[in-house]
Amino acid sequence: MTLILALDFGGTKLAAATVNIGSRKWLRYERRFSPVGADASTDLEIMRSLIYSVLQDTKPAAIGVSFGGPVDASTGTVRLSHHVAGWENIPLKALLEDEFGVSVGVDNDANVAALGEHRFGAGQGYDSLFYITVSTGVGGGWILNGQPWRGSGGMAGEIGHIVVDPAGPVCLCGKRGCVERLASGPYMAQNVREILENELSRRRGGEVLRSLVGDNLTLLTGQLVSEAAAAGDDLAKEVLHKAAWALGVGIGNVANLINPQRFVLGGGVMKAGEDFWRVVRQVARETALPEVDFEVVPAVLGDDAPLWGALALAETGMA
Amino acid sequence: MTLILALDFGGTKLAAATVNIGSRKWLRYERRFSPVGADASTDLEIMRSLIYSVLQDTKPAAIGVSFGGPVDASTGTVRLSHHVAGWENIPLKALLEDEFGVSVGVDNDANVAALGEHRFGAGQGYDSLFYITVSTGVGGGWILNGQPWRGSGGMAGEIGHIVVDPAGPVCLCGKRGCVERLASGPYMAQNVREILENELSRRRGGEVLRSLVGDNLTLLTGQLVSEAAAAGDDLAKEVLHKAAWALGVGIGNVANLINPQRFVLGGGVMKAGEDFWRVVRQVARETALPEVDFEVVPAVLGDDAPLWGALALAETGMA
Repeated sequence: MTLILALDFGGTKLAAATVNIGSRKWLRYERRFSPVGADASTDLEIMRSLIYSVLQDTKPAAIGVSFGGPVDASTGTVRLSHHVAGWENIPLKALLEDEFGVSVGVDNDANVAALGEHRFGAGQGYDSLFYITVSTGVGGGWILNGQPWRGSGGMAGEIGHIVVDPAGPVCLCGKRGCVERLASGPYMAQNVREILENELSRRRGGEVLRSLVGDNLTLLTGQLVSEAAAAGDDLAKEVLHKAAWALGVGIGNVANLINPQRFVLGGGVMKAGEDFWRVVRQVARETALPEVDFEVVPAVLGDDAPLWGALALAETGMA
Repeated sequence: MTLILALDFGGTKLAAATVNIGSRKWLRYERRFSPVGADASTDLEIMRSLIYSVLQDTKPAAIGVSFGGPVDASTGTVRLSHHVAGWENIPLKALLEDEFGVSVGVDNDANVAALGEHRFGAGQGYDSLFYITVSTGVGGGWILNGQPWRGSGGMAGEIGHIVVDPAGPVCLCGKRGCVERLASGPYMAQNVREILENELSRRRGGEVLRSLVGDNLTLLTGQLVSEAAAAGDDLAKEVLHKAAWALGVGIGNVANLINPQRFVLGGGVMKAGEDFWRVVRQVARETALPEVDFEVVPAVLGDDAPLWGALALAETGMA
């Protein structure tokens, strides 16, 4: 039996699991929320306890790590975390290799999820795919020729920051009308909030949204926008439609540029409802040239996608 | 000595050349314009005469072909030509292999040019690059991991038809604000013409443009728009600036998605002037995330790029 250790440093939670190569069931599995005010040291401390708990007295043959933030995968160095302080330039691969004496692969969560879906999920048997996560942010990971493509500086996959509407609202990155600015959960909530707070607005809709949060608009989330849209709220439908449009244009543009077989969509978007998916697929189809074929499908690995991807990453490192 | 035969089926001209592997000078080289009213049969007839003229009594070890239109590179079948009738589903690779009994590689001109620039031009030593031709149309070709990337259906590289301005003018493909609709030569000329023909327009500029074509606006070309802009014509500058903006947004988006080391720009755009290149680079830089590094450089192989690329394609087929 060859044991693999898979680790997931999410923005708000940490998980460790062991699996025997070839098995599709975790041997041991532990997860814990990152405490409020956590920094890199406390996260590493908690992860260490999870690791020893799942390993017990066994020793892994390799370790794969998914990290929720930019990573230099060639050196396994974390560049930073957008959620947790103190992760600037942490040599995570080196730290783990020193401690456990085995080969370690570290990559960002979108690349790892792409690898996981390719090996174990919606991308099995596909030679080229683009995995897109649409949640708090919008990011992506590539499989080309059956292998991860990370770009010359490890920055490939940033579909969240391609411009689809140069006349759109300003994104945190400084540009207007990025995919993330229109399609991420928090930005969808913000778009709804701004319209509701504008007293001059006389548009229809918003009643369901207001009732969902008891008029406390700071409680709005992308998920609630989806729910309100499903319940028929016109304003929620409009904002959700614009999000789906942005994602559809992004996917169609990517199809024209790279022509992958499949687009696999994961993250909060999985719960966005039939209408959302229908618009995404329709706009993507209209944006791509008629000769460019592709499918847009939901991810299948769910919350454990980073861990399954970390397993795939560890196996890749052993090959 | 190992002899390679390189062929270029352009939209308006045909060329054949021979070279010894390792040499950077053509042994023999012939080119001819495609006659008015040419179809696939006449083009093939002319090319056959060029081939026998450059081959004389020698026999090539391999043949590489650049075709100015969509090609299924996996089978070497031409899908169609947008310029010359009768090219629908012509098995060009099979025809040439039957006639000459050697291995033949056929691909579209953008992919072939990418390969040529990578092997002999502005992409030498670069592992990843995107070649973009900006002329009558706008297309592109990929080198990733040092190899051509053609996409799952051979359609990768279509930067001409990614949408950069959803509120822009309608493209032949049916969408609004494609890169090609804003940045190709004929469309730049059309944009200028439409503004000049609109009698209600009271904007500045256009005097130089009118003088260049003696008031016959049907004679306008992208090249003349560039020349008028260089001579200070405000209208020409505005249209050229919009073209450079569109190309810059496209390049920045591609940089975020794929993160290649270099963008190599060839075609008529080479003569668009310093201002054009400055705007392209600036907008591309602003569109890409700060962490995404890349260079935008002119192609160096010029009019012979398809032939040099065909040579590289033939060599690839022999490897």
